[in-house]
Amino acid sequence: MHEAALVELATRPYDAISVETIARRAGVHRATLYRRWSTVEGVVAAALGEAAQDRIPVPDEGSLEADLVALAGALARTLSDPLGLGVMRVMVLGGRGPGPLYALGQQFWRGRVEGMSVIVRRAVDRSELPVRTDARVLLGALAAPICYQALVVGRDPDAGDALLAARATIVAAQAGLFAEHGPAASSEQRERELQNTPEPG
Amino acid sequence: MHEAALVELATRPYDAISVETIARRAGVHRATLYRRWSTVEGVVAAALGEAAQDRIPVPDEGSLEADLVALAGALARTLSDPLGLGVMRVMVLGGRGPGPLYALGQQFWRGRVEGMSVIVRRAVDRSELPVRTDARVLLGALAAPICYQALVVGRDPDAGDALLAARATIVAAQAGLFAEHGPAASSEQRERELQNTPEPG
Repeated sequence: MHEAALVELATRPYDAISVETIARRAGVHRATLYRRWSTVEGVVAAALGEAAQDRIPVPDEGSLEADLVALAGALARTLSDPLGLGVMRVMVLGGRGPGPLYALGQQFWRGRVEGMSVIVRRAVDRSELPVRTDARVLLGALAAPICYQALVVGRDPDAGDALLAARATIVAAQAGLFAEHGPAASSEQRERELQNTPEPG
Repeated sequence: MHEAALVELATRPYDAISVETIARRAGVHRATLYRRWSTVEGVVAAALGEAAQDRIPVPDEGSLEADLVALAGALARTLSDPLGLGVMRVMVLGGRGPGPLYALGQQFWRGRVEGMSVIVRRAVDRSELPVRTDARVLLGALAAPICYQALVVGRDPDAGDALLAARATIVAAQAGLFAEHGPAASSEQRERELQNTPEPG
């Protein structure tokens, strides 16, 4: 059923999807779906959440590099798969508010980042990263080149891409580029602070 | 007319677009369009090419950091604009072959990377980067976090994001992570070579 919802999302405009069309694709009676979900958003949220959690568990390999390689590798495999790529495209298409997919996407990413930020906390505890490293920024830096490859370049990301993403993320984090900023810090403040960072290398 | 083609691309499935629908949206007679382009691919290629060249010229600011900040900033501004974001979404949706948009996307990116790679050559000449730095990999690393922010996170990338992308790209490049590999190098070879790179930081 989740797979049917994701396939629907990947192949139809969002406003043409209903609980009925998902049920039809899944080959089940719509009453079966309505028993659990009354809205398309409900089905989609469940499908996205389960797809991500099933495919990408939180790694705990004993070092920051091993954890980030494992995480980037899992993302690369997910985006090399038509279904995983379909989910990501849904995020891309629905990624601007306002709209039901926007809220879903925001909720989805917040949940994933919270789950994965333990990787950064462990690395800080092992003195592999500066204390104030922002987990959200670091995880975004890791995911970005994998997503870029799959979505923009249009080539399946592989293990070499995952390793490169992990390495590049680590050198930038160790240079202090992903330092945490309070929620009130504006992008202008952030820019000024970055300007004052000593030249790396 | 270009704008009409891009808006069509951003809002309709590709196979529902014709020279007629583009003409209708642009408010011109289809004969006007047919005089220059006989196919949808022709109009789209022209629109994509012009949109990119108009918006993002090759910077020459005297230093690698200034060039990369200018380039990332221009990309951030482009993707903060509905039309620029529409173009990028077209690449995302058409980014998998085979299909007319795949070939267009590939041609488009190859052209852009070739045009921008002079930035990397100049930086190598100024001894700001290792000699064998791969311009394609470096430019991808710069663009990735900006595209990720706009497409996946769903938030307008700003000047702070551009500066961070430039800084992170430079530390990774200076650590030798974007070293060039012959076209015959497999991803396994690349992975082995990366494994042999001394631990950065």
